[in-house]
Amino acid sequence: MRIAFTKMHGLGNDFVVLDAREHALPPLTRDVVAALADRHTGIGCDQLVLIEPSQNADWRMRIFNSDGGEVEACGNATRAVGLLIGGEVSLETLGGTIVARPDERGIAVDMGEPRFDWNAIPLGYAMDTLAMPVGWPIDDGELEHPVAVNVGNPHAVFFVDDPYAIDLASIGPVIEHDPIFPERVNVNVAAVTARDAITLRVWERGAGITRACGTGACATAIAAMRRGLVDREVTVTLPGGSLVIAWGSDNRITMTGPATVSYTGSFDWGDYA
Amino acid sequence: MRIAFTKMHGLGNDFVVLDAREHALPPLTRDVVAALADRHTGIGCDQLVLIEPSQNADWRMRIFNSDGGEVEACGNATRAVGLLIGGEVSLETLGGTIVARPDERGIAVDMGEPRFDWNAIPLGYAMDTLAMPVGWPIDDGELEHPVAVNVGNPHAVFFVDDPYAIDLASIGPVIEHDPIFPERVNVNVAAVTARDAITLRVWERGAGITRACGTGACATAIAAMRRGLVDREVTVTLPGGSLVIAWGSDNRITMTGPATVSYTGSFDWGDYA
Repeated sequence: MRIAFTKMHGLGNDFVVLDAREHALPPLTRDVVAALADRHTGIGCDQLVLIEPSQNADWRMRIFNSDGGEVEACGNATRAVGLLIGGEVSLETLGGTIVARPDERGIAVDMGEPRFDWNAIPLGYAMDTLAMPVGWPIDDGELEHPVAVNVGNPHAVFFVDDPYAIDLASIGPVIEHDPIFPERVNVNVAAVTARDAITLRVWERGAGITRACGTGACATAIAAMRRGLVDREVTVTLPGGSLVIAWGSDNRITMTGPATVSYTGSFDWGDYA
Repeated sequence: MRIAFTKMHGLGNDFVVLDAREHALPPLTRDVVAALADRHTGIGCDQLVLIEPSQNADWRMRIFNSDGGEVEACGNATRAVGLLIGGEVSLETLGGTIVARPDERGIAVDMGEPRFDWNAIPLGYAMDTLAMPVGWPIDDGELEHPVAVNVGNPHAVFFVDDPYAIDLASIGPVIEHDPIFPERVNVNVAAVTARDAITLRVWERGAGITRACGTGACATAIAAMRRGLVDREVTVTLPGGSLVIAWGSDNRITMTGPATVSYTGSFDWGDYA
């Protein structure tokens, strides 16, 4: 059986998108997903995305990591699926229903509400999440007093002079695995460059340094807004490109940015099953 | 303009193959090749392969590394192109004309004649290439007395008890850059397990540890044959799979192994140019 797919990316976070809206596909086992995601012997991707019919929303979006495990949600994948389907679309995910709609700056995605309670991050014990009373030694001092934010996953946001001067590959995994974060943490190092501009690098939990982390951009923008450093709409520039993050009066976060079709293709299901 | 391509691999060494036999393509500049080879924002591959008409052979095969630079030849790519075209086919390359033909074990490729003279490797000065009088310190002693062989590119072959016990990531670059190899060198650590079987790991010059290096398999098989350790046809097992290497009475090397189509696709030229 020949299966068509679309290869897409959002700021370099890349996806194989399988469209099962019209015709169901055979089951995507962990082994099939891992074989398709292999960059040398398969198609290759960070995540595989499956679009299916939904009872509760326009369509259902399922997201699988390259190891075959299914994950809750991904802002970059939601923009890609939004572009592929076109128009305003509601997508049922394991993390709830997400709405994507085209915008003059790309595709806008509702990323839900941020949480700040220490046990919603979660942290190991009660403390101030606007300036955590902790620090980790780096070359020229300490990386200290992060803002803790949960935007569907846990983030620690450090404001520094120059994110590119931080040895994130060394300190990222140390902070990620610090027992103060019982579910580990995404590590964001950010510089506020204007009332509407942030430069950001992210150490992603379980993935390391990435070109663009949508939830990291949201968490960092919200952290800067809570600190009063920026306005309620800000452009966050990551190594892979820029996202616009807005925090509405309804407490919901909107992330707007690009999605791109790299190419289209097809493969023989029997080669991977 | 929509361009069709075939994604292929040989033992995990993967290629985007563009077929310009019927219709010429626009010029493949370094930037276009690099954009297509990007695994996140392009198609992604180790090498891009272009098939064109030839004046001197059935077809012309051009090979570009992922940085856009054109390279002489690649045994794995030759097998892939042989599979794609089908039948016995002669391919003009920058490294000379190569013949590929189907075989019950995959695709067989003529890899030319090995060279053993010290200045054909090349080495820095005259010495015995069957057991170079040199060694490099490793954990439990020395990696010493390699065989030096040139099979289109320079190789040093070390016979050891267990290639997987060698810290190749550490010692590989040291040997690659030793001034005794003025054009640097590919580093092979191999164990002879039978008169017709070798286990091999390769540190590739400029590329590091790879899943499968066709010239490394050839060089190692020839080195073992010169030392009298194996017969004139041997199966070389690399991390990515196995290749059969034969050294004919005409002094030419034949490499036989698999090639696979991963998927087919098409992209918009304007997205990459």
